[in-house]
Amino acid sequence: MNKIVFLIQTSDQKGLLADITSYFYTKGFNILHCQQHTDSRAKKYYMRLELDMKDLSCSRGDLKSDFAKFAEPRKLDWSCNFTDNIQRVAIMASKTSHCVYDLIMRQKEEDIRCEIPLMISNHPDLEHIADQFKIPFYYLPVTKETKKQQEQQVLEILQRHHIDLVVMARYMQILTSDFIDPYAGRIINIHHAFLPAFQGANPYLRAYQRGVKMIGATAHYATEDLDQGPIIEQDVYRVNHELTPVGLKKVGKDVERIVLSRAVQAHLEHRVIISGNKTVVFSNEH
Amino acid sequence: MNKIVFLIQTSDQKGLLADITSYFYTKGFNILHCQQHTDSRAKKYYMRLELDMKDLSCSRGDLKSDFAKFAEPRKLDWSCNFTDNIQRVAIMASKTSHCVYDLIMRQKEEDIRCEIPLMISNHPDLEHIADQFKIPFYYLPVTKETKKQQEQQVLEILQRHHIDLVVMARYMQILTSDFIDPYAGRIINIHHAFLPAFQGANPYLRAYQRGVKMIGATAHYATEDLDQGPIIEQDVYRVNHELTPVGLKKVGKDVERIVLSRAVQAHLEHRVIISGNKTVVFSNEH
Amino acid sequence: MNKIVFLIQTSDQKGLLADITSYFYTKGFNILHCQQHTDSRAKKYYMRLELDMKDLSCSRGDLKSDFAKFAEPRKLDWSCNFTDNIQRVAIMASKTSHCVYDLIMRQKEEDIRCEIPLMISNHPDLEHIADQFKIPFYYLPVTKETKKQQEQQVLEILQRHHIDLVVMARYMQILTSDFIDPYAGRIINIHHAFLPAFQGANPYLRAYQRGVKMIGATAHYATEDLDQGPIIEQDVYRVNHELTPVGLKKVGKDVERIVLSRAVQAHLEHRVIISGNKTVVFSNEH
Amino acid sequence: MNKIVFLIQTSDQKGLLADITSYFYTKGFNILHCQQHTDSRAKKYYMRLELDMKDLSCSRGDLKSDFAKFAEPRKLDWSCNFTDNIQRVAIMASKTSHCVYDLIMRQKEEDIRCEIPLMISNHPDLEHIADQFKIPFYYLPVTKETKKQQEQQVLEILQRHHIDLVVMARYMQILTSDFIDPYAGRIINIHHAFLPAFQGANPYLRAYQRGVKMIGATAHYATEDLDQGPIIEQDVYRVNHELTPVGLKKVGKDVERIVLSRAVQAHLEHRVIISGNKTVVFSNEH
Repeated sequence: MNKIVFLIQTSDQKGLLADITSYFYTKGFNILHCQQHTDSRAKKYYMRLELDMKDLSCSRGDLKSDFAKFAEPRKLDWSCNFTDNIQRVAIMASKTSHCVYDLIMRQKEEDIRCEIPLMISNHPDLEHIADQFKIPFYYLPVTKETKKQQEQQVLEILQRHHIDLVVMARYMQILTSDFIDPYAGRIINIHHAFLPAFQGANPYLRAYQRGVKMIGATAHYATEDLDQGPIIEQDVYRVNHELTPVGLKKVGKDVERIVLSRAVQAHLEHRVIISGNKTVVFSNEH
Repeated sequence: MNKIVFLIQTSDQKGLLADITSYFYTKGFNILHCQQHTDSRAKKYYMRLELDMKDLSCSRGDLKSDFAKFAEPRKLDWSCNFTDNIQRVAIMASKTSHCVYDLIMRQKEEDIRCEIPLMISNHPDLEHIADQFKIPFYYLPVTKETKKQQEQQVLEILQRHHIDLVVMARYMQILTSDFIDPYAGRIINIHHAFLPAFQGANPYLRAYQRGVKMIGATAHYATEDLDQGPIIEQDVYRVNHELTPVGLKKVGKDVERIVLSRAVQAHLEHRVIISGNKTVVFSNEH
Repeated sequence: MNKIVFLIQTSDQKGLLADITSYFYTKGFNILHCQQHTDSRAKKYYMRLELDMKDLSCSRGDLKSDFAKFAEPRKLDWSCNFTDNIQRVAIMASKTSHCVYDLIMRQKEEDIRCEIPLMISNHPDLEHIADQFKIPFYYLPVTKETKKQQEQQVLEILQRHHIDLVVMARYMQILTSDFIDPYAGRIINIHHAFLPAFQGANPYLRAYQRGVKMIGATAHYATEDLDQGPIIEQDVYRVNHELTPVGLKKVGKDVERIVLSRAVQAHLEHRVIISGNKTVVFSNEH
Repeated sequence: MNKIVFLIQTSDQKGLLADITSYFYTKGFNILHCQQHTDSRAKKYYMRLELDMKDLSCSRGDLKSDFAKFAEPRKLDWSCNFTDNIQRVAIMASKTSHCVYDLIMRQKEEDIRCEIPLMISNHPDLEHIADQFKIPFYYLPVTKETKKQQEQQVLEILQRHHIDLVVMARYMQILTSDFIDPYAGRIINIHHAFLPAFQGANPYLRAYQRGVKMIGATAHYATEDLDQGPIIEQDVYRVNHELTPVGLKKVGKDVERIVLSRAVQAHLEHRVIISGNKTVVFSNEH
């Protein structure tokens, strides 16, 4: 069933729920699903609405411009998404393959609903996986000196292919704001630690050295500040003294795979609202 | 902050959300929180509404009778609850103390908001705990022959003390429908297994014999059919070949305690709607 | 580092640990790792020993025949395994692809150390996956009438290719003892429920109907009795009223994948001892 | 059944397992249980041995002095513990009661096997709990100026009552080395965060501000460096955007309780070996 999904955030106001739902009822829409969150500390209100697309009696453009008029006096920050619009996802990776394999597999399984029109890497190592699944592969090496130029090349490719979401599936490069800004809120990164613990390099080695009893992974939106962006999903796995750094890395793969895929799925299903440095992630009710 | 909580279930109807929220808006209420669930298979709609009690401008009785008029044509099945009404919980137990201790402790900690005006047991073993916390203890032994009569005694005590919720914290007796019917949906039982696995007696021994790799616990509303009532909460704990039945029982205690306390808390916070043999348990958003 | 792994089970006897470790010390072996379990109820003793293969100063045959002489009077039930012997795994599946993809991906990632020389299915649906990874695919349809004959065909293929382990990655057929007996303890099946709950068909639908709050998966050795074999691994995932049977099935995929892969990995690393209808699964210490 | 538990650590040496187990076999001991760990990176070897106390045919002193002779040339760092020696635990707390209640309850339930001869606090708030369970309560307030003196008072009380283990059940004071040194490896602290994330004050508020999706707790041995000591146990609980700092604190209580009690239990059962800034925690096989 095709749906229209509205994501809305605004300051908390009395009567807003009745107001918004009445708006859609008047327009002839059946509200399939309505999720909300009120942050009473920040006095902010968040909403996700699912409408049945077959109730749409005007053009998509008209729906948006009409809702814009409704939203403007109420100071709603909103987006309107159509689920028949299959999103286009670019995978960026370096040498590590497990997250790449996993994302492609889930897309094939239709657990993640999107197209993957291309893969970009600063190393040639994963080209065989792209080939195997007939995904165009762009090898764009990068050095300190060529970083600016390489980022521009990547950006150009992303724009040319109308990419909606960039997934950094263990792409081991720090990005500049020139790259991030045009895709703000549309780049998901996986960090192989339970942030804010073990930010930066070699988290498994540092977890081993500290003797932690659980290791984790964190998927977050990329921002200019390394490993500081809004967290979408985290999970952990119990470990003990028996595991070496190599062993931790191995068992960590499953956590990384699952955390990244859940975050990508939530984003693609229009279940995430970014608010400052935090996220509201609505649950998947199906 | 004192609140009014409405729990509503009905068949799914177009415009219901706008309809209900507009009703409360018109009455001058700020909707603090609204949670919903649509079961599209069963064509059923569930809702939980939190209102700010300081917006109440009429008597509680008038609120209810007015809403009854609104609900009647829409065929809403509903309850209206006031959070300043501290509920009265009776603990029933036999010889095992860990759930009893845990419930009392959580009530003292104010994590479970209720009064515990009495404890009832078919054994005298736990009287010292009741004494310690100055909770009146009723020792009502039961045999096959006296079951009917003992249940009537218990019922009489529950009613005399205006008990809202009965928590069977490892009360090892099968209840008859004469007992359950007057408290339908208001008796919570803890079963020391991950239902529907290991229904009935000695679940830890049977878990050991089957060689399962996780053990669990289930909190459910008591019904006439043993261990078949609507499930409120479940959880598990990882085990392995190293544990004997006694060891399983020991590690199982923590799962039992946590599962039971979460279920009791959800019930007392008016977050559970019973629908047939299943429950809708809304999340705790605070 | 190549290793020799001994798996031993016997009745519990005083001095056995000193006896066995002294045997290997005398033969010049460094014991890299020694894990034990005593089941004091069943009076059984289990042991896993890892030796450094570079300490082997005789032929592999001589090691085995010499240890056989040691084991005989002590009534040890044992196996001797060499980790440089890469095991050959056959995947059997029907129409569902997620476990198949996952196993192949993990083998490519070298998280599961084995060869996968063939895939067998009673449906043609997954042939494209086999092709993609250049794994020979045998399509052997089966009907009630041809079951006996098809099983013989499968057996013949397994034997011709010297298969060490058969992984039933959602192969939806009940096997006869004619098939199982020659591979007793070497067929791993994944059941998409937390056994012993929901044995048999359609576990996700039945989980939905029962309203459970967690769903699970179980990997076990196949035996003649459906879903009754020794359990190797289980795990669960928290769900709630929001999920339909289709939704449960979707989130269940991750549990199935992880549970099956952990079980296969434990078996291939010689960490599982089957004892009656239960398993001893030693932990992975690396 | 009473047992003798040896904890041993040393540098990794060939033949050590055969050597040690033969020693005990020769002395007439049945080894009930033997657990080991080899840290191949640090070239260290760890062992835990359980012996049946009824096999002890000499005095306890003679056993120790005899083993000392065996251990000396092998450079074993060891302790010998007798399980009929019930350990004496002092609880230190400030104003927060949940961990205190939990420890006492578990001791009453005999899940934690120890005596609790006293409770010490820098605030009078929890005296009623001590009274309830008839545990002597020492109220020793502390200011910046009196810290040194107060620590000396506490030390004097601990020594006078022959305390084996100090449990800091949310004792909100930084300890000096003068206090820690005499009880090195015998003070367990609970930190209400998943270390090394959120060291120091107000971890729940900081977890809220960072928008993490799980909160945790860490039990560790106290050292001079705040929140830096060897970690014994950690666990986490899944949270989401719905929870305020107060809500996080509430759900965190269960994690704190469980993590602290598991750590205390592991220590009292002689299952922990401290090695540098890390621990080896052997599993509980009963």
